[in-house]
Amino acid sequence: MVTSIDESGFQPADPQFEQRVRDSFARQPAMTLIDAEMTRVAPGHCEIALDNRHELTQQHGYVHGGIVGMIADNAGGFAAASLVPAGTSVLTVEYKLNLMAPADGERLVARGEVVRPGRTLLVTRAEVFAVREQKWTLCALMQQTIMAMHGKAERAQHPGN
Amino acid sequence: MVTSIDESGFQPADPQFEQRVRDSFARQPAMTLIDAEMTRVAPGHCEIALDNRHELTQQHGYVHGGIVGMIADNAGGFAAASLVPAGTSVLTVEYKLNLMAPADGERLVARGEVVRPGRTLLVTRAEVFAVREQKWTLCALMQQTIMAMHGKAERAQHPGN
Amino acid sequence: MVTSIDESGFQPADPQFEQRVRDSFARQPAMTLIDAEMTRVAPGHCEIALDNRHELTQQHGYVHGGIVGMIADNAGGFAAASLVPAGTSVLTVEYKLNLMAPADGERLVARGEVVRPGRTLLVTRAEVFAVREQKWTLCALMQQTIMAMHGKAERAQHPGN
Amino acid sequence: MVTSIDESGFQPADPQFEQRVRDSFARQPAMTLIDAEMTRVAPGHCEIALDNRHELTQQHGYVHGGIVGMIADNAGGFAAASLVPAGTSVLTVEYKLNLMAPADGERLVARGEVVRPGRTLLVTRAEVFAVREQKWTLCALMQQTIMAMHGKAERAQHPGN
Repeated sequence: MVTSIDESGFQPADPQFEQRVRDSFARQPAMTLIDAEMTRVAPGHCEIALDNRHELTQQHGYVHGGIVGMIADNAGGFAAASLVPAGTSVLTVEYKLNLMAPADGERLVARGEVVRPGRTLLVTRAEVFAVREQKWTLCALMQQTIMAMHGKAERAQHPGN
Repeated sequence: MVTSIDESGFQPADPQFEQRVRDSFARQPAMTLIDAEMTRVAPGHCEIALDNRHELTQQHGYVHGGIVGMIADNAGGFAAASLVPAGTSVLTVEYKLNLMAPADGERLVARGEVVRPGRTLLVTRAEVFAVREQKWTLCALMQQTIMAMHGKAERAQHPGN
Repeated sequence: MVTSIDESGFQPADPQFEQRVRDSFARQPAMTLIDAEMTRVAPGHCEIALDNRHELTQQHGYVHGGIVGMIADNAGGFAAASLVPAGTSVLTVEYKLNLMAPADGERLVARGEVVRPGRTLLVTRAEVFAVREQKWTLCALMQQTIMAMHGKAERAQHPGN
Repeated sequence: MVTSIDESGFQPADPQFEQRVRDSFARQPAMTLIDAEMTRVAPGHCEIALDNRHELTQQHGYVHGGIVGMIADNAGGFAAASLVPAGTSVLTVEYKLNLMAPADGERLVARGEVVRPGRTLLVTRAEVFAVREQKWTLCALMQQTIMAMHGKAERAQHPGN
């Protein structure tokens, strides 16, 4: 494997990062709509999972690629959020997602990690796994750019404005 | 607006393309979950819209970027589906999405178009607009690769398999 | 062709934008290496062209995808540069490029345009055409994010720093 | 770190993969133009390096982002090529590149690896490092889709055709 990221290498600027990240996640009604849960937060890392159910599927019975994208985007975004200072919000600038295998499992798990923690822009990536009877299949790969809005605690206007 | 879409160039391989595309859309429970509707299909083009409602929002009250991605992905994918022969299904290989402004409106409209209709791979792009009191704001831009699965009418395995 | 570019919408912040953009292009030795020329600059738009020659090709005799990427990246970046204020430099944050047809022609032309001119981030796209005996074939499509470094006239550190 | 890819996990379909990959690289005049060398090939992996020199730079004296993209694209593409059967050529469908830090070093090293080795489509990623006095700085990150052209040994038409 090319990179070995030592999780201990990230120093969160905000000691309360976990509570702040979990609170932010809890304020997203769209995550409730799809019943996603934040299963782990660590400095520069975030894991989001959801159980497969009929409402989330596409025409072949797999979880819809758009739902896969939602949790990949969020896993990367909250991994970035874990590293920014208190009073700073984050916004997704863009992401690129490869759907590599059907999201065919009882459960999906998205794992995001920060690759480059810049002050203004953070680059992340995420992997999404479909889990069926303990077997994990990598079904999507994401690369993402996140913007830190310093001094704007979750009331930020979008950078485009 | 930047783009003016010239629609005259595409010849659908399947005269029944509209019914086939609309049927495929109707078979996606995830589109029902978010109450998206297919508002237009034409050769190489597709428009998908949804009304903003609390369940679809993120922490700032705008439509969640993941929902924006879902309708952008689908608008591009169904634009591609309109051009493939009968008995062929399509799969999203990958897409890249820029979120450029908050999805702040009563309604979102995603417009997808095919740029390159290859036999195996089709390249599309999509624009997503937030509409508030008749004012349209471009809030997201997508570029996407779609794979045509010839001879596999909506029962296709994913190309990764 | 799919896109018809309406140029009337952009107001350059710097009346001397063309000279500034052309000077910046002229300071890039890598553009000299591949003999690219800037054939047009307008507010929010830039065109870069090069003649095909053996040194630029890959194993099939077409212009190398990496060279195609170079001029697409630059066409988008300089389109963005045309809109920023004097004393501001621009940096490519990221881009995504689809190679859609062989770059098979006597000449390549890359046309970049700004889609969203934010203050800090600008979103652009570019199309690259291979030209053979007056026939233009769209061979690549790019979507890109550019960062404006205000108050840093071409001496900017990278935003990652 | 999210993924741990065991290099031994890839079984090359072609025992002569290394010679085939190195021959293909040697047939690219554009790689000669920038003096890139293939420093390593292993199943699912490829490393390409080049020495910094004035001709490869942009206006700030760093290696041009387009050159960074060229070696990232190639490192991913040849990593994919190492896994396909004899008599099969590969083509870049698309890639997405984040430039994260200036390519500021005496030497650049691009390391590509296959993440998903599908039969028709392979997904890869690559990292590019700038090396200065033994210090390696991650300056770019790429995610890429490659198409395998079975039965077309380096004479393939582009899939777009």
